[in-house]
Amino acid sequence: MARIVMKFGGTSMAGIERIRNVAARVKRETDKGNQVAVVVSAMAGETDRLVNFCREASALYDPREYDVVVSAGEQVTSGLLAIALQEIGVPARSWLGWQLPIHTSDAFAKARIRTVDTHALDAALAGGEVAVIPGFQGVAENGRVTTLGRGGSDTSAVAVAAAMKAERCDIYTDVDGVYTTDPRIVPRARKLKQVTYEEMLELASVGAKVLQTRSVGLAMKEGVRVQVLSSFGDGPDADTLPGTMIVGEEEITQVERQLITGIAHDKNEAKITLTSVPDRPGAVASIFAPLADAGINVDMIIQNIAHSYGVAAASTDVTFTVPSTDLARSLDVLGNAQATIGFEKLVHDTKVAKISVVGVGMRSHAGVASTMFTTLGARGINVLAISTSEIKVSVLIDEDETELAVRVLHSAYGLDAQAA
Amino acid sequence: MARIVMKFGGTSMAGIERIRNVAARVKRETDKGNQVAVVVSAMAGETDRLVNFCREASALYDPREYDVVVSAGEQVTSGLLAIALQEIGVPARSWLGWQLPIHTSDAFAKARIRTVDTHALDAALAGGEVAVIPGFQGVAENGRVTTLGRGGSDTSAVAVAAAMKAERCDIYTDVDGVYTTDPRIVPRARKLKQVTYEEMLELASVGAKVLQTRSVGLAMKEGVRVQVLSSFGDGPDADTLPGTMIVGEEEITQVERQLITGIAHDKNEAKITLTSVPDRPGAVASIFAPLADAGINVDMIIQNIAHSYGVAAASTDVTFTVPSTDLARSLDVLGNAQATIGFEKLVHDTKVAKISVVGVGMRSHAGVASTMFTTLGARGINVLAISTSEIKVSVLIDEDETELAVRVLHSAYGLDAQAA
Repeated sequence: MARIVMKFGGTSMAGIERIRNVAARVKRETDKGNQVAVVVSAMAGETDRLVNFCREASALYDPREYDVVVSAGEQVTSGLLAIALQEIGVPARSWLGWQLPIHTSDAFAKARIRTVDTHALDAALAGGEVAVIPGFQGVAENGRVTTLGRGGSDTSAVAVAAAMKAERCDIYTDVDGVYTTDPRIVPRARKLKQVTYEEMLELASVGAKVLQTRSVGLAMKEGVRVQVLSSFGDGPDADTLPGTMIVGEEEITQVERQLITGIAHDKNEAKITLTSVPDRPGAVASIFAPLADAGINVDMIIQNIAHSYGVAAASTDVTFTVPSTDLARSLDVLGNAQATIGFEKLVHDTKVAKISVVGVGMRSHAGVASTMFTTLGARGINVLAISTSEIKVSVLIDEDETELAVRVLHSAYGLDAQAA
Repeated sequence: MARIVMKFGGTSMAGIERIRNVAARVKRETDKGNQVAVVVSAMAGETDRLVNFCREASALYDPREYDVVVSAGEQVTSGLLAIALQEIGVPARSWLGWQLPIHTSDAFAKARIRTVDTHALDAALAGGEVAVIPGFQGVAENGRVTTLGRGGSDTSAVAVAAAMKAERCDIYTDVDGVYTTDPRIVPRARKLKQVTYEEMLELASVGAKVLQTRSVGLAMKEGVRVQVLSSFGDGPDADTLPGTMIVGEEEITQVERQLITGIAHDKNEAKITLTSVPDRPGAVASIFAPLADAGINVDMIIQNIAHSYGVAAASTDVTFTVPSTDLARSLDVLGNAQATIGFEKLVHDTKVAKISVVGVGMRSHAGVASTMFTTLGARGINVLAISTSEIKVSVLIDEDETELAVRVLHSAYGLDAQAA
């Protein structure tokens, strides 16, 4: 007997027929004698519909009322799944965010989970009842409904798994696991059996949209073993199709360890260059402080070598990237600060892509970055910027070369699957 | 300054444009300095959509989960109206059933309101905030969501009005008041300025579908003055179009008093006759006890005069009506009890209609029933059954004669409006 959390996304909950499939899948776990909590998303499209109502009602809608409106979507699916489970003889009940309760901060529309009360949950599970929990929602200290921000149901699932000390948290999604890279770009991409939290965080944050980044961070912090697997597996027992386990580094079997785990790409970055910034102390701070104040995340930063044209005059170009969605606001903020910063021109480029190679293995191996530059250089791909972390090397390149870069790197690091 | 409850039905809440109109109407009340609580229904069609999901998921759905699912509709509109009010500068917040809270019985899917806690509500209203309350929902003692049964939002509104000691409860609906009879049948039907609770109860229960019967009973019990008015009045100030006030008898101005207030008709009755029931003590009980056990409401009852065919043998025919929707079940119940009851044949007829004349004035006037029979008889309309209460006379007639009967009675009691 094990305690398991199962999480189903909006596509899996879209309509009664699919909810019935979810119920059947949950029953397979309870039939094994497992204690199961299920976390559900709203039906696909429903949250968008509710968000649009709020936007239509007011461009500056009150996030507290927004939370009341949009949390209704998961409320509906949790009740329906409980009914569908009962229908096939599985005792079940729904537990809304305020009923469990799931306590959150009062940052409405983007709240953070503080604690998941397991008093009622433990009793229900011990009594052989499946607990169906709407994802994405909780309750603030003042008793008002909160939501966790888009994609928050993954985080709900991990938080519930941590609180109930679940053996694992199975996230059913429309992909069947985490791949070495995007299989649409590299048909010979391989599904990973295991990946560490750190790797998943890097892969998620650079564009592998399998899990919400926050949920992975929480899983790492709480040591929750997360499995990503497909909700559309065929056959009478889809458990025979394992997904990808996201676990701590110590759990990764030696034979699985590779230098590089995966390659991610992200086209949602924009490059900004400030030309002829005075090369004096505090100049860089004067650029990034107003961006930080505006809540804009700056990613890769390159300060070109300063060229001295005389004794007094020294200036430099500063280049960095921001999310494309923040570009207009960034240009605005920087334009307003031109006098303070003292740059000459503001140049931007959205036709760029970030390519990242990720792997805990690179901690103990030199030469990962070198292989990357050599490989890209051999194909004439120009590197516009570089950034690194302990387990990641990222380069910024021309957007048109994204697919080529991913393919050649996938081969260069030996990630290609054997031909079938 | 007055305290007012305003209630808006599903048609008024169907879409953001209409919700904006509702917000504007609420603002007109707050602009007068009134303290306002608003009770809202779900968007038109939404409750049906959610109910159908439940039915699809299981024919025998758990009413506790049904309540979780269907209460979401009003949750959405209450949040949206709060946003729409804030958008036009009216401070507002939503209060869900469990937040206020509205305590109900634990008869899920058809719960009864026990108390409305006004602690938070009073504070909000005193602080100049409009309280937006989803109708139809509450919370049981065990903390689970309940709903009040279809049309329950009227009852929510009256209960909130009683708890907050509101001067009146304005029910905005798609008719602009209560009429002497159905204007589709009698174009010269008049809108009533006032009607008593008792009259409204009789009119509502016999087919004038303006307000939910339960809400009128509650208003009477709590002395809540209810106004029915149209949510689609034109003009910049629709307050100039008064509706119908439903009040206690003592409030009715003398000049308004009439012998008969209105005429209702109801085609949703079915007539059942049991032939040759043994005429012995307990025979009638053996018919109605099993029907009561099955939760079937029997309305009009006629026991024909027993004909004695000898010394020992005496038998009688028993006729009564039940709601059409309960006919099949009634026939089933009675068929199973044939041996116990000892009747010969079971005959039924759904082509019947009940016509009722209603008015508190008939208490002090004889001759109301006599006028009714004379008028119907003069037009050759056969009366199949009769039942009376202190303020109502009802007859059962052939369904095809419904419109004719209503028209001639409307004239006979002097209810026709003067030609314009």
